[in-house]
Formats: sequence, structure tokens, C-alpha cells
Amino acid sequence: MSSRTHTTIGSDPRAGVSTTWFDRWLLHSMMAALPGAGYEVELWDGSRAGNNTGMQVRIRDRDALWQVVRNPSLYFGDLYSAGRIEVDGDLVTFLERTYAALDAGRRASASPWWKLWTDGEPRPRTISAARKNIEQHYDLGNDFYSLWLDSASMQYTCAYFPQPGMSLEAAQRAKMDHVCRKLRLRPGQRVFEAGCGWGGLALHMAREYGVEVRAWNISREQIRFAAERARSAGLGGRVTYVEDDYRNMCGECDAFVSVGMLEHVGPENYGGLGEVIGRCLAPRGLGLIHTIGRNRPEVMNGWIERRIFPGAQPPALSEMMAIFEPFGFSVLDVENLRLHYAQTLRHWMARYLEVFDQVQAARGSGFARAWHLYLAGSVAAFNAGTMQLFQVLFARGGNNELPATRRHLYE
Amino acid sequence: MSSRTHTTIGSDPRAGVSTTWFDRWLLHSMMAALPGAGYEVELWDGSRAGNNTGMQVRIRDRDALWQVVRNPSLYFGDLYSAGRIEVDGDLVTFLERTYAALDAGRRASASPWWKLWTDGEPRPRTISAARKNIEQHYDLGNDFYSLWLDSASMQYTCAYFPQPGMSLEAAQRAKMDHVCRKLRLRPGQRVFEAGCGWGGLALHMAREYGVEVRAWNISREQIRFAAERARSAGLGGRVTYVEDDYRNMCGECDAFVSVGMLEHVGPENYGGLGEVIGRCLAPRGLGLIHTIGRNRPEVMNGWIERRIFPGAQPPALSEMMAIFEPFGFSVLDVENLRLHYAQTLRHWMARYLEVFDQVQAARGSGFARAWHLYLAGSVAAFNAGTMQLFQVLFARGGNNELPATRRHLYE
Repeated sequence: MSSRTHTTIGSDPRAGVSTTWFDRWLLHSMMAALPGAGYEVELWDGSRAGNNTGMQVRIRDRDALWQVVRNPSLYFGDLYSAGRIEVDGDLVTFLERTYAALDAGRRASASPWWKLWTDGEPRPRTISAARKNIEQHYDLGNDFYSLWLDSASMQYTCAYFPQPGMSLEAAQRAKMDHVCRKLRLRPGQRVFEAGCGWGGLALHMAREYGVEVRAWNISREQIRFAAERARSAGLGGRVTYVEDDYRNMCGECDAFVSVGMLEHVGPENYGGLGEVIGRCLAPRGLGLIHTIGRNRPEVMNGWIERRIFPGAQPPALSEMMAIFEPFGFSVLDVENLRLHYAQTLRHWMARYLEVFDQVQAARGSGFARAWHLYLAGSVAAFNAGTMQLFQVLFARGGNNELPATRRHLYE
Repeated sequence: MSSRTHTTIGSDPRAGVSTTWFDRWLLHSMMAALPGAGYEVELWDGSRAGNNTGMQVRIRDRDALWQVVRNPSLYFGDLYSAGRIEVDGDLVTFLERTYAALDAGRRASASPWWKLWTDGEPRPRTISAARKNIEQHYDLGNDFYSLWLDSASMQYTCAYFPQPGMSLEAAQRAKMDHVCRKLRLRPGQRVFEAGCGWGGLALHMAREYGVEVRAWNISREQIRFAAERARSAGLGGRVTYVEDDYRNMCGECDAFVSVGMLEHVGPENYGGLGEVIGRCLAPRGLGLIHTIGRNRPEVMNGWIERRIFPGAQPPALSEMMAIFEPFGFSVLDVENLRLHYAQTLRHWMARYLEVFDQVQAARGSGFARAWHLYLAGSVAAFNAGTMQLFQVLFARGGNNELPATRRHLYE
């Protein structure tokens, strides 16, 4: 990959133009806002700032410099995708160092730039807006995701690696079993799933645990794929996929599960989600929500929200409680699987880099580089602790049919 | 005990006086506010309301009736303690039915009484007020608590019953081990404990896990007892008890633990507690807070807060997050041990009833009955799901030295 990150993409009208004192002042002032960044930044004429650690970032033209200084969290991604910013060295390491420096700079208010460097509000997540948000991300084409997700169940959520060195396929299966054990699924139970992706978990629950599943999703591409897989697996009678918003779920279930949907729901809708669960979950039912989260309430990185995941906003636990507390639910168990997501993403990125040329040929260099950056940035974020992965198990407040310990998860 | 609950206590100037239509109206209107209460209430002249289920509550005079209707959550306890209200039947069952009826009545706003029936704000919890609050409860005398707590370690917090039928002593030991395993204690580590009770956990950690403990507490009686026990166990060199407020903790520790203190801290001080942990916990340290909690923010029952636990206010998880989120902590694991507390309290109550006469002789009937009511009410509250028990494990956000799974807790 390192040869790939060196390729110059797009023509650059200013290449060969010298920097001015103002360009160099901008560069120095940006680096001063990122204390201890641990790399050097070089401008198009060879001017430099930062620490000579062998890692180098190259900004190839004046517009790129001015844009990244004005709004680094939005424009770095765009400029990297366009090849107008290059990183010489390991992309994940670069991003980890940048997150740490951003964090240090923000906490120290290291520069006046920090007043400017804020992420905007995410896009709306009404029923109609949600459909557009989800289309933009999940309807990129099942063929694209199947190039680098696990082949067995197409899980686009954090896997679970109880043993080191597990394959991605085994770890995704372990994740599904971990979820099913937490929910204590028994044959014949009715399970509702909110946001079912390509349907892998629903199939697994029906096949391995003998439950009946109704699974909701607003991504048309995913629903088609999922229904086709259920039919060919002979499980069409036990798994029903519904192309509709979670807000329209109805009926009664013994278990409610949602893996990787809450990121898209938005805190303003948590009360509504709690109400939906409140009207669906049987008195002795259990529910589980698996979601990317944060250590404190924060909006998403601007570039990821705009270019990759429209409307995304992973919640802090304090925000998540708005799903449970007003509706008489009792939180039974919260597990943070953050480092499992870093590991999952490393698997995805390695597979992605193997098919990088194929993606580039089919969808262009900008797209291919953007997705590499997104995967590398996600590895870095989970590894650095700026992102979390929460599994929250809950029940109605008066439900006493609970196991005494969590030992059954580890037997 | 049932013969005891029948004993009339105190003289009753109105005994023999007939009820008026207004007394009877008050009684009926109170019962209408408690839909499905599942017992009958009889006034001093034999007038009745409610359901004839074999369980009966007797209100022995007019003042008692008027007081309990005006503020049941405060005055029921006082009137029961004084013997002016009696319960014929199992006290825990009566309280469970009452909690359920209160809950149903509150949700349905079943009567205008519900506008009046609110619990007041708890008492202040400044450094000086906290000392008074703690004295009132914990300095009742070590001899009193040793009558009915586990003999081995005097744990006045929720035990852990991984096997049904465990003794209280074994379950308190299992609780301490569960906490120590979550914290992954290793010999030579420095542990800070905030609110150490009679010092049982500190001793256990030092003896069984080879750590050095500094334990803070503002209850003079408890600190004296704890220090004496450490000396006689030959652990005086490894355990230091400090008679001071948690707000004054200083130094660095590898593990921070607090079992059963947060109930007394008050949400307005959670930020201060987070700051204390933030300045004490080593970069790779782990922290655990074990506390009674609620499913939603709520003030404590008025009688318990006034007569038993001054200043107490168990938090909802959303409130607890104020300890962690502003200070860069990452929540790793939350476990709700509610039903273990119901079981612990049943053990305490059974032992308490064995020494009831002794307590009554030493401290009077009002005190003895109040503590019986408090223990029975707590069994009922944990069993009905109106109270929770949370263990929250946390670390600094960037700490990656974490076990992959929680299997080590169950080996």
C-alpha cells in the first residue's frame, strides 16, 4: 500500500509555485495547535514543520493547505481522498498520532484555531431523511461490501475475539453467539431485530437457536439480499424481513435485538426507540442493543458524517439511558468491546487493501482512497479510545427471571 | 415475628372512639389511589376498605390515619415503628404489594392524592453535613450491626450468590472476590478505597491479593473498628485507614474501589468524585464503583432518607455517568446485581429477627420496629425492581491493557 499512497492523483495547477510567508505561517500555526503530533508536514515547495520522526505528510497545493487549516476534520478526508494530501508511512499510526495530538490540543486549547475547529451538527434523522442517509451508505452495492466483510454472514459490525488469532469468520460467529447467549434465546421464541444489515444475525438466530425472527431494515439492497439468503437456506418460514423503519415496529416479542443501528438513530429519537421497545417486549423479555459509542456526548467527525455515514452519531452511555430510563427498563449488563472493534477493522482493512486496485478500477481513486482512510481512521479511533463499542442488555424493571450470574456466557 | 407485629405499643387515647364519615372517606380515597393493593385496611372501630385477601393492615387511631394519608411514604414508617399501624401477615409481601400499588397508582395518576404524595429533597451532603449524615447511620454502634451482618467481614453491602443456598459469609466473600477479579488485583499494587465500612474489603484485598490499601471513611466508629482488626490480623503495615472525606483523597493508586459509598455522595457531588479519581488513578489503573441504584433518577423514600439513611440518594446510570464522562474515563463493564441484594437482605432480616427482642430491650421498641421495617422494605424494593445494585468498572480512555473477555471472572 505504501507505493499507492505515494501516487499523485489529479493535476495540481500550483505545483512548482513557491510558498509565501503566509502559507508557512499557516503551516506552523496549524502544527502548534497539534502538540506532539509526531510527524513532519511538508508543503509543495519543500517547506516543513513538525517533528522529524521518519513519518511525513505532504500537502501538495495552497488550496489544500488553506482548506485543511480551516476545517481539518472535514477537509483532511476530502484532500486525502483526492490525493492532494499524502501520508508517507503507516496510515493507522499517522491517524493515531493525529487523534492523540488533536485530543491534547483540544484539552490545552493550544491555539486560537480550536475555536474554529468544531464539527457541525449531523444531518436530520426523520423517517424520510433516515431512508436517504441509509441509502447513501448501505446501498453502495452488496458486491462492494462482500469484497471485504466476512464471507459467511456479511456482518458489518464489531466481531468478538474471545481467542486471539481467530479468523474474522469465527469471530463474527462468536459475536452472534455472544449476543444470543446474553438474550438467552430458546427454541420457539419470537425475536424482533431492528436494523438487520444483510440478515446474517437473523439467519443465525433462526438456524442455531430455533427462534422465529422478524427483522426490520430501511436499506432496500440489504433486505433483498437477506430475503434471498433466507430462502436459499430454507429458513424463509422462520425469518421475515420487513422493509420499514424501526419506528413502525409492532407486535410482541420475547427478545428485542439491535446490532449496529443505534449509531444512525440520533439522540433526539432515543425516547421514540424506547417507546417502540416498550410496546413490543413481552413482560419477561430481554433486549440487547449493540452500538458504537463515545466516552462523552460528542458529534461525529465531520468528514465521516458527511462523506461516509450520513446522520451517524454514536452515543455516550448517559445519552443511551434515554432509551431505558423513561420506560421502566432495567439495565442488566453493559460490556465495552472497543478493542474487539479495532481488531475487526484491522481484518476489514487488510482484506480491503487486497482488493484496493479492483475497487479503484470500478469506483475511481477518490472513492477507493476515501474508504481506505475511513477504515484506517476507525482502527485508530477504536485503538486510541476515542470510540467505544457498547452491548447493553436490559429487561423490564419487574422481571425477576434473570440468571444469577453471567457465567453461562463463558461455558 | 407475627406475634410481635400484633403487640400494641403506646397508649391510644382514641381507641374505642368511633370513626366519622370523613375518616371513612379518607380511608376509601387512600385505597382508591393504590389500585390492586391486595390487602384490607381496618380502622380502629372496625371500618374497612380494600380487598379481603387474608392480609390486613390496622390503623389504630385518627391521627395515624390522617398522617398516613397526608404523606404515606414518610409517616407509614413512623406510625409502624410506633405500633400505631400494624400489619397482620408477612411484612415483605405487604410492602411488595404496596410498592406495586404505589407504582400503578403513580403511573395512572389514580387519585388527586398523587399530587401531594411526593418525597422531599434529601439533606445536604457538604463535607460537614456528610459527617453528620454518616454518624447518624453508621455510628449506631458496631455491636448493633455485628448482631446481624456476616460475622467474618462485617459487610454492610450487597453480597454475591453465584451458587444458590450459599451462606451469607460465603456470599460476602464471593462478592469481595468478584470485585477484586474485576479490578485484576496483583501483588504489590496500591489500592485506594473510598468509604470502607468496617474495613472488611480492605483486609481481604491485602490478605488475599497482596496489595497495599489506603481506605478512607468519615465514620469514626467504623475506622476504629477497622484499624483494630487490621492490627490484630497482622496487616497493619499493608492497610491504612484514613478518617477523612473522599474529597480529600490524594496520592496515586493502581486501583480505585468504592463499595456502598456512592449512595451517600449525592448527584451534585459526582463531578467532584470524578475529579478525585482523575487525579489519583494511574494511567493503566482500573476503578470500580459498587452502589445501590435506580432505573431512573428519583429521590429516596422520605422515611428512609429522614429516619434511617440521611442524605441517601441512589443514582440512575444516567446520573452516575457524571463521574466518568467529563473526566475521560471509559466504562468497561456494568453489572446489575439487584436480586443478589434481595437475597442478602433476606439473610440480614432473618438474623435481625432472631435478635429482635435483644434490640428491643436495648434500644426500645420504636427503634427495633423501624429497623425491621427498613430491612423488610429493602427486601421488597430489590425484589420488586424499584432498587438496583450496579457495579461499574472503568478505566482511563486510552488504557489498552484490558482483558479481551470477562471469562476470568468465572474461572
